[in-house]
Amino acid sequence: MSRGRPRDPEADRAILDAAGEIFLERGVEGTSIEQVAKRAGVGKLTVYRRWPSKEDLIAQAVETLVTEEIPWPSPEQIASRSPYELVEQGLDATARAAASPRLRALVARVFGSSVSHPALMEIYWRGYILPRRELTRALLARAQEEGSVAPDADLDALTDMLAGATTYRMLRPDPPDADAMRAYLRSLYVQVGLLR
Amino acid sequence: MSRGRPRDPEADRAILDAAGEIFLERGVEGTSIEQVAKRAGVGKLTVYRRWPSKEDLIAQAVETLVTEEIPWPSPEQIASRSPYELVEQGLDATARAAASPRLRALVARVFGSSVSHPALMEIYWRGYILPRRELTRALLARAQEEGSVAPDADLDALTDMLAGATTYRMLRPDPPDADAMRAYLRSLYVQVGLLR
Repeated sequence: MSRGRPRDPEADRAILDAAGEIFLERGVEGTSIEQVAKRAGVGKLTVYRRWPSKEDLIAQAVETLVTEEIPWPSPEQIASRSPYELVEQGLDATARAAASPRLRALVARVFGSSVSHPALMEIYWRGYILPRRELTRALLARAQEEGSVAPDADLDALTDMLAGATTYRMLRPDPPDADAMRAYLRSLYVQVGLLR
Repeated sequence: MSRGRPRDPEADRAILDAAGEIFLERGVEGTSIEQVAKRAGVGKLTVYRRWPSKEDLIAQAVETLVTEEIPWPSPEQIASRSPYELVEQGLDATARAAASPRLRALVARVFGSSVSHPALMEIYWRGYILPRRELTRALLARAQEEGSVAPDADLDALTDMLAGATTYRMLRPDPPDADAMRAYLRSLYVQVGLLR
């Protein structure tokens, strides 16, 4: 930093956590640097010294929220094991994540600000969606080799349809719990040929 | 109304228009009765006399936004004409609607508030999404009878996948213009068997 005292990693973390929480509760428009400073237990100037605007702060908070690790098949596993087996194996974790109130709130807020604050959607797209799309596409390509996805299927369209339907189901009225979400995901995967 | 003067339809319309616009610009959290009254050119009390809270006001504004008429095949047309022909015929209007900044903003804001303010999503679901889902499902059922959708296809899953992918495409970074959206929709419809 060119101005002020050296960075305090603990304060930075508290500020990012507070910004993430308030963003999930109230969206970009309902978040202020003042509220974030108060919840993080620091002065407003401490926040402004690190982040010039609330948009920058929320962008980094979203980046922190989407980099959580999830168990993930490696490229070697995708190449060598049956796609059905890998999908079946990941189904529980995917259903639990998609039914969690925290991820629902994050997806809602990011999609909600996609027109007014497209930078947040770009961070989310790059950090969260793109790697999952690549995985889904690789599994579809393997299933196509094995004959359970039609040889003329449009894998990009199918990837969008899977991701889109899942997002849609998360945000529609009466969202499912983890069991209902698992059954829902299973019906999508069967429909496209990723499960039997 | 039990209190105050009789309703003034012109003022009501101006208030609802202003509330809808501000909601699209700033979301629920960024909207206040004060701003709405100012933009509508009425006093705050005039608004409060009609709507007890900003949530009630925004809900009715969303209801107004989603009841716009669009050209729509009748049940008789669905029963008697080729589903391809009906889909082809509606493609332009659907693509233009899905690419319009106004509908993008509405979808973003409604999905964005689906966790914090589920009542708005319920209004949107009932007024906008459900009739379109029923139409899509009816077209899929006809295409299934004609053999271009597989006899064992899960029509509910396919309906969600079409609607989900379209919503998703509207809100992701770099949204398409009407021409690109038409090409995108065509690829989805071909994939599910609603177009050849």
